[in-house]
Amino acid sequence: MKKLVAEFIGTLWLVLGGCGSAVLAAGFPELGIGFVGVALAFGLTVITMAYAIGHISGCHLNPAVSIGLWVGGRFDGKELVPYIIAQVLGGIAGAGILYVIASGQPGFELGGFAANGYGEHSPGGYSMMAALVCELVMTFIFLFVILGSTYTKAPGGFAGVAIGLCLTLIHLISIPVTNTSVNPARSTSQALFVGDWALGELWLFWAAPIAGAVLAGFVYKALSPEIVE
Amino acid sequence: MKKLVAEFIGTLWLVLGGCGSAVLAAGFPELGIGFVGVALAFGLTVITMAYAIGHISGCHLNPAVSIGLWVGGRFDGKELVPYIIAQVLGGIAGAGILYVIASGQPGFELGGFAANGYGEHSPGGYSMMAALVCELVMTFIFLFVILGSTYTKAPGGFAGVAIGLCLTLIHLISIPVTNTSVNPARSTSQALFVGDWALGELWLFWAAPIAGAVLAGFVYKALSPEIVE
Amino acid sequence: MKKLVAEFIGTLWLVLGGCGSAVLAAGFPELGIGFVGVALAFGLTVITMAYAIGHISGCHLNPAVSIGLWVGGRFDGKELVPYIIAQVLGGIAGAGILYVIASGQPGFELGGFAANGYGEHSPGGYSMMAALVCELVMTFIFLFVILGSTYTKAPGGFAGVAIGLCLTLIHLISIPVTNTSVNPARSTSQALFVGDWALGELWLFWAAPIAGAVLAGFVYKALSPEIVE
Amino acid sequence: MKKLVAEFIGTLWLVLGGCGSAVLAAGFPELGIGFVGVALAFGLTVITMAYAIGHISGCHLNPAVSIGLWVGGRFDGKELVPYIIAQVLGGIAGAGILYVIASGQPGFELGGFAANGYGEHSPGGYSMMAALVCELVMTFIFLFVILGSTYTKAPGGFAGVAIGLCLTLIHLISIPVTNTSVNPARSTSQALFVGDWALGELWLFWAAPIAGAVLAGFVYKALSPEIVE
Repeated sequence: MKKLVAEFIGTLWLVLGGCGSAVLAAGFPELGIGFVGVALAFGLTVITMAYAIGHISGCHLNPAVSIGLWVGGRFDGKELVPYIIAQVLGGIAGAGILYVIASGQPGFELGGFAANGYGEHSPGGYSMMAALVCELVMTFIFLFVILGSTYTKAPGGFAGVAIGLCLTLIHLISIPVTNTSVNPARSTSQALFVGDWALGELWLFWAAPIAGAVLAGFVYKALSPEIVE
Repeated sequence: MKKLVAEFIGTLWLVLGGCGSAVLAAGFPELGIGFVGVALAFGLTVITMAYAIGHISGCHLNPAVSIGLWVGGRFDGKELVPYIIAQVLGGIAGAGILYVIASGQPGFELGGFAANGYGEHSPGGYSMMAALVCELVMTFIFLFVILGSTYTKAPGGFAGVAIGLCLTLIHLISIPVTNTSVNPARSTSQALFVGDWALGELWLFWAAPIAGAVLAGFVYKALSPEIVE
Repeated sequence: MKKLVAEFIGTLWLVLGGCGSAVLAAGFPELGIGFVGVALAFGLTVITMAYAIGHISGCHLNPAVSIGLWVGGRFDGKELVPYIIAQVLGGIAGAGILYVIASGQPGFELGGFAANGYGEHSPGGYSMMAALVCELVMTFIFLFVILGSTYTKAPGGFAGVAIGLCLTLIHLISIPVTNTSVNPARSTSQALFVGDWALGELWLFWAAPIAGAVLAGFVYKALSPEIVE
Repeated sequence: MKKLVAEFIGTLWLVLGGCGSAVLAAGFPELGIGFVGVALAFGLTVITMAYAIGHISGCHLNPAVSIGLWVGGRFDGKELVPYIIAQVLGGIAGAGILYVIASGQPGFELGGFAANGYGEHSPGGYSMMAALVCELVMTFIFLFVILGSTYTKAPGGFAGVAIGLCLTLIHLISIPVTNTSVNPARSTSQALFVGDWALGELWLFWAAPIAGAVLAGFVYKALSPEIVE
């Protein structure tokens, strides 16, 4: 139960911090934080929580991460569904707090919140196929880095830094394509508030990240079976 | 006494570095540092001091942090008031040095310095209620990360990085809402120079951070009583 | 074989992440990531892979690095050619994935991709001689930092951070001069897609980085023979 | 002798990297790196060299640092003059390489290079007195962080990160005031190329940093005599 509360609070923070930095600073184009600031914010949610709750729940904060770790032999399948539920609920709670704060600005309009999309709703107008490839490859590498940096032969303690900065890097690359998901809980939290097209495109932000994560689990195992714990 | 001198110098640096980066660079919109630079600066004041004085005083630099650690069972209540006094005085000293430097520019006007505010004095015009929720939630997570990352099971040495980057992240999110406090000493140091509205709104930047910190102390204890030192 | 797969995936990520951040964000001048974002992205590809595959292949991701480590006495010459082949193929694969994603934007034009160049094709119009000096010196320092920070007397675990941030720093300095290579595999991957002038200028981005790397190997050995492993 | 070569190369890198990032990117206002990029670059020169040569020479790269460490009882006075000479020569060599690269751009003009100045030559027009206070206080804190984070009770290995990021922070604050020195070798290297006013104002960038460093040495010792090594 403590693990699930930790995942709930951690995913709440990922959505509130990552999506919140994008939504709240959007009105300050000159002084605002741009894509670099949003990319940093997402990465820092993971770095901060990695050291805060890593020793409690492992700090997954993401259904694709839990699934990839399970395929890679690092996570018990019995905990998979409760973890995913806690992550999705935490994400929604984070989006709710963000909504409360954001709507305290006069003239607030929800717009696209920080939802993920493709085609017409991709920030750069990228096609569904580009979005699918992008989300799959990004999540593949994300899990590859997670599996590698938490392996016992890797230098102790640095995994939180490596994984958080990997999420920052993924955002530096792919915000223009899909607004960057690699995390179905994060996408769901925003789509529920936006509704409409965001719910209609949500399938991709479950399918592609999970496919990439499963692939990484298999590749990492196949690449180095004897070095997997 | 050495602890108090360390807290004084550390909080002086937090205000001089964090608020100073905002005030001094404000005249360079093109090349200036924007919200990302200010967010980095605040976080780096904590990272630098964490390794410099963490082994002397614990490097709180913030009344809300001292109170949250006390509620969480990590800090001796007898030291609470002296720590808070040293932090507030250090903050004022930092603001004083900043004033000396800033007023060396021809045509200098104090304006809002780097004071915190809500409503009309929120950078983005956010309401008092949004400001209150924002400061409370941000400080809650700040203390949650502090309590978690300094726990003995967390990887040794990384707490300073995680906590400093958490303060950076909090600024990336909430500068538009309140100019970001989460630290009553920082808010007081600026309000004393600005006077007027800044003093009138100062209550919120004591009340909300302390409420969030107290809540985090209780939640962290309730979440995992057996893992609290 | 596992080492070569690791180098392939790692160099794929270096090109996809570093060049990809530049190519995909190029259409967002206001919110985009600028040189700082691209510099961060290149550095983060190395930090993330250092902790993910450092314990498998050493995480070279760069023919000049492999050659410099060999000259410095840290890498077995028998592995040199297979490593370089894996790195070049990985870079090309990364460029291929980037092409698939980037071409999913309506109105996509390849342009210069993220190729390196000098003279007319230098971002700032820098001469061939300036480009040569710049690439040579930058790679010299890069290898000097790699050889120093992975030395056994250096603090354990931090090499990945130091080396990755060194690549970020090199980009902060030299993007205006050559678009920054210091890595023949990275340059080759882009030149193959751009063809034309990029292939014609590719020689410099093999010659200068390798010359700098060889020099660093000798200097580090001469500087402190007894401290080389 | 090896220590002096290490200090020479390290200070060369500090000037080439820090000043170079400012000089070379100056022509790209939109995509360029701004004050944040330059601040990062200076800090990263120290982080990269800390792990590369920290175990050889201690990685001072700065006469004020050597003097402050000597006053604080951490550095042998017999090595002081050779260190300072190596640092100044390294800085000049770095400026020379930068000049060779920068002058490879058509229409290159030296202008102010990256020299430090006050009054008319302060980026924001700050007075001599503001510049003096600023440089003194910044160097005081810089040495305070160096003395604290390298103390044996501080977490091992993190000093390079804390000290490098402290230099980044100092630049985030004080570029508008003096273009930031806190390092007489860095200031001298630029002033020799600019001549004229830069040489005339150079005294301040020796006097203020050294005064701040001496003060920090005394304060740190007085603050905690028994915890100094």
